[in-house]
Amino acid sequence: MSLDQIKIVLVETSHPGNIGSAARAMKTMGLSQLYLVSPKVLPNEESIALSAGADDVVKQAHIVSSFEEAIADCSLVIGTSARARHLTTTAVTPRDCGELAIVRSAHGKVAIVFGRERIGLTNEELLKCHYHLNIPANPEYSSLNLAMAVQLVSYEVRMAYLQKQQGYQLHHSRVAEMPAEGVVAEELEYFFHKTEQVYQQLGFIQNSAVMKKLRRLYLRTAIQRNELNILQGMLTAVEKVITENHRK
Amino acid sequence: MSLDQIKIVLVETSHPGNIGSAARAMKTMGLSQLYLVSPKVLPNEESIALSAGADDVVKQAHIVSSFEEAIADCSLVIGTSARARHLTTTAVTPRDCGELAIVRSAHGKVAIVFGRERIGLTNEELLKCHYHLNIPANPEYSSLNLAMAVQLVSYEVRMAYLQKQQGYQLHHSRVAEMPAEGVVAEELEYFFHKTEQVYQQLGFIQNSAVMKKLRRLYLRTAIQRNELNILQGMLTAVEKVITENHRK
Repeated sequence: MSLDQIKIVLVETSHPGNIGSAARAMKTMGLSQLYLVSPKVLPNEESIALSAGADDVVKQAHIVSSFEEAIADCSLVIGTSARARHLTTTAVTPRDCGELAIVRSAHGKVAIVFGRERIGLTNEELLKCHYHLNIPANPEYSSLNLAMAVQLVSYEVRMAYLQKQQGYQLHHSRVAEMPAEGVVAEELEYFFHKTEQVYQQLGFIQNSAVMKKLRRLYLRTAIQRNELNILQGMLTAVEKVITENHRK
Repeated sequence: MSLDQIKIVLVETSHPGNIGSAARAMKTMGLSQLYLVSPKVLPNEESIALSAGADDVVKQAHIVSSFEEAIADCSLVIGTSARARHLTTTAVTPRDCGELAIVRSAHGKVAIVFGRERIGLTNEELLKCHYHLNIPANPEYSSLNLAMAVQLVSYEVRMAYLQKQQGYQLHHSRVAEMPAEGVVAEELEYFFHKTEQVYQQLGFIQNSAVMKKLRRLYLRTAIQRNELNILQGMLTAVEKVITENHRK
């Protein structure tokens, strides 16, 4: 499994600027293998300018003369197509695409292929792809430009990569990080007990309903030690003013 | 649940072209509510040109003079930050962000806020956000431009939307627990302001560190209206005892 095993292939791009923007999009997500199939205009200064610091990706791009040459050494080829939603058995979302690319990159090279700016990939080219990527855009306005599409797909590849490589918890990132500084039930009970005592003295708490709601609030939030320390400090400050009040 | 409940807020953009590209990115994913906080240059022909057919989003953009104004009626505010990975308790991925936005849009307005092109959001602005979005980019080259970031986030919002429509189960455990009746930013700001005032009087709050931590705690917990009412009531009770104390 390696990001270097994954190629982004752009077929017959018209605008050299798009090559640069696509390179930038790739590099932000850790991809570097750019293949250009017969670009109408070779990468130029405009490509470099729009790559905004990803010029290494542009300069190292492999320029080939056919789709077949770009995918020749790949064991998985995913082609993008706005028509893919009709190819029901092979259609994949960007998320599927990212996961497929990462899983299969352990066994060989993977190509993710983007077609011409206006007309996409030909039917003949699509037939040479194992899967067909469809970005689930707004049906009333699906005008993603090439670099935006490359950005979304590269992002999904990176997300799948992080998930696999680092055991990155995509859906529970915060929850997973929290227990370290969390407090134990006993400490929290002491805080609740103290809160009830203080606010009973103030006449604010007169029945059990308030404490139930406060419990739910603070339990839900997975309170940390430094936060509990602050809340305890606030209670102590209130206690002090009550005591002073009684003395006077 | 509605995409119209979700605002994309751009703070002090420098380049009018970015406004157009962001509008295009939003519209491809079905989003339409664009808020511009004090743009350096108002939307112009360049914005329209780069919106590439999403000119309706640009033309209907709400231009406001402050961050607070943009988020005032929102019950969930997610701010983007490259520094978010250090805010472990509130950091969310674009995927979390999409799911949170969709789930919470059923109960109120949601703002997803993008900062200035070069310097992002200020610390003060970040403190007013419930969650902090961090795009897990290549640490060696994390140079996503503004429109690309808007594209990724809008895509995740749309993915969450489609999944929800199709009745898919959300993976995000905390999303499922989110309360029904959220409070809007303005109400929460009032509570923070009052808390600071009262505990300064008690001598407990002497610098900004405590309020920062309290903000993080209460923003993270997605506080409900009846809970906020209790906390406000507790503050009022404390205020009363302080006043009595001064009278004596």
